[in-house]
Amino acid sequence: MQDRREEEGSAGHPFDAAIALHHQGAGVFTGETSPAYANMVGPYGGITAAQALNALLAHPDRLGEPIALTVNYAAAVADGPFTVITRAARTNRSTQHWTFEFQQDGQAVITGTAVFGLRRDTWGLDKHPMPSVTSPAELRAQSWERAKVEWLRRYEMRFVEGGMPRSWQGEDQGHSLTRLWVRDAPPRPLDFASLAAISDIFFPRIWLRRSRIVPLGTVSITVYFHTEAATLAATGEGYLLGEVRGHALSRGYFDHAGQLWNEAGHLLATTHQIVYYKE
Amino acid sequence: MQDRREEEGSAGHPFDAAIALHHQGAGVFTGETSPAYANMVGPYGGITAAQALNALLAHPDRLGEPIALTVNYAAAVADGPFTVITRAARTNRSTQHWTFEFQQDGQAVITGTAVFGLRRDTWGLDKHPMPSVTSPAELRAQSWERAKVEWLRRYEMRFVEGGMPRSWQGEDQGHSLTRLWVRDAPPRPLDFASLAAISDIFFPRIWLRRSRIVPLGTVSITVYFHTEAATLAATGEGYLLGEVRGHALSRGYFDHAGQLWNEAGHLLATTHQIVYYKE
Repeated sequence: MQDRREEEGSAGHPFDAAIALHHQGAGVFTGETSPAYANMVGPYGGITAAQALNALLAHPDRLGEPIALTVNYAAAVADGPFTVITRAARTNRSTQHWTFEFQQDGQAVITGTAVFGLRRDTWGLDKHPMPSVTSPAELRAQSWERAKVEWLRRYEMRFVEGGMPRSWQGEDQGHSLTRLWVRDAPPRPLDFASLAAISDIFFPRIWLRRSRIVPLGTVSITVYFHTEAATLAATGEGYLLGEVRGHALSRGYFDHAGQLWNEAGHLLATTHQIVYYKE
Repeated sequence: MQDRREEEGSAGHPFDAAIALHHQGAGVFTGETSPAYANMVGPYGGITAAQALNALLAHPDRLGEPIALTVNYAAAVADGPFTVITRAARTNRSTQHWTFEFQQDGQAVITGTAVFGLRRDTWGLDKHPMPSVTSPAELRAQSWERAKVEWLRRYEMRFVEGGMPRSWQGEDQGHSLTRLWVRDAPPRPLDFASLAAISDIFFPRIWLRRSRIVPLGTVSITVYFHTEAATLAATGEGYLLGEVRGHALSRGYFDHAGQLWNEAGHLLATTHQIVYYKE
């Protein structure tokens, strides 16, 4: 009974269970996709990014904290087990460059790179302009009652503007800006892995422009981390303010670029992605 | 003599000479850094990005055109020869995922990934909002007479706003926005490789905030391509309008995100990078 309680304790939050990996030695990790973070087909891209980062965070040779992470979605990740092969391509005095690849059935399904680094005292800007918006307490949490994908239920989202279209009748919303407050559901203290996952939170910009669901999938995401473990710990279970804009949308691909601040006004991450779409 | 003329013809522009690579087979290419694109230490990061992309463009197995490119500057590239090892990690029906690594003396100095793809007719936005700015003809070209690095002389830049500080007395310019018109010098018809190089054109945002030169270096750049060879060909030797903004700047790292349009208003690329700095 005691063992069972301990297991529940250590894997109490679905996010921790989802990113759990087993080190097989030599930088090779194994894991499994999590039904709690299932998307329409395969897992939510953000949970895959978090798994990638978690492999590097767990690597015994790791130096410093995450600075940059690029994850390329080379193929749909199938529900089930996967292997993560990591390699420290270069270790300098204060930075470390990683490459990684997820394989299923011996085939690459994810490729990526990451930069880790030791931060130091320098001249800098403490805070970075954050939009002045309604506080989360004054906004309604988006209902996921009718959501067709499970991973949405793992996030509490309170849209400030540019929320999901209320009808899917094909009207162009005329812009591609979304602002929302977001945190894990149930709440969970923020760390680098969950910040990586949240960096993929923004719904597809094409939905705002078309008010129509079209087949699509992220092909590449890059996240820059502008924070450290201490600031993440201070953020705790608080909300993050996310802002995202699209730039291009044509001939099968669109992009977006976003920022994530904590409630205290610290810019924690900037995130960019390019997405494939049909029709 | 005829051979010599032909050589001059094929390597007439310093950019073409700088990105020339030799395929050794099996996706391994060799090249050399170019004094024409020398930075303070080693080569301009944009020319390295162009060399990486050129290796993939030249690869016999290449499918489609560039969609995304991430280049990680793992170590200072030394002046002299380098080897580029490329690998098609995954080839799908309409997308292809590449990894690459530059080595010098058997050590990784650059790591990266790229996505190529076939574009298709879809619903889309033809044009994307471009800032309304003074035309290049009405702006003075920046003088590089006193420039300490050679690569700047390979680009004609006409700053619209947020130009380089006129004095280096430590004043905070209070913003981190720059807009400029840019093209190769001498002019050269735009292609994917030169667009990749120009994606690194923006001078460090910390210079705007500090009006002071501090030691720094890009650690990672990601470029998304929103265009095709036909649009690049139509752009020809025309100017590109570049806009860039910084978001974060603290404890040793800052970022920026930018866009590049052609004069006809087509958004050709979005570009993001994170930069290490000291002091």
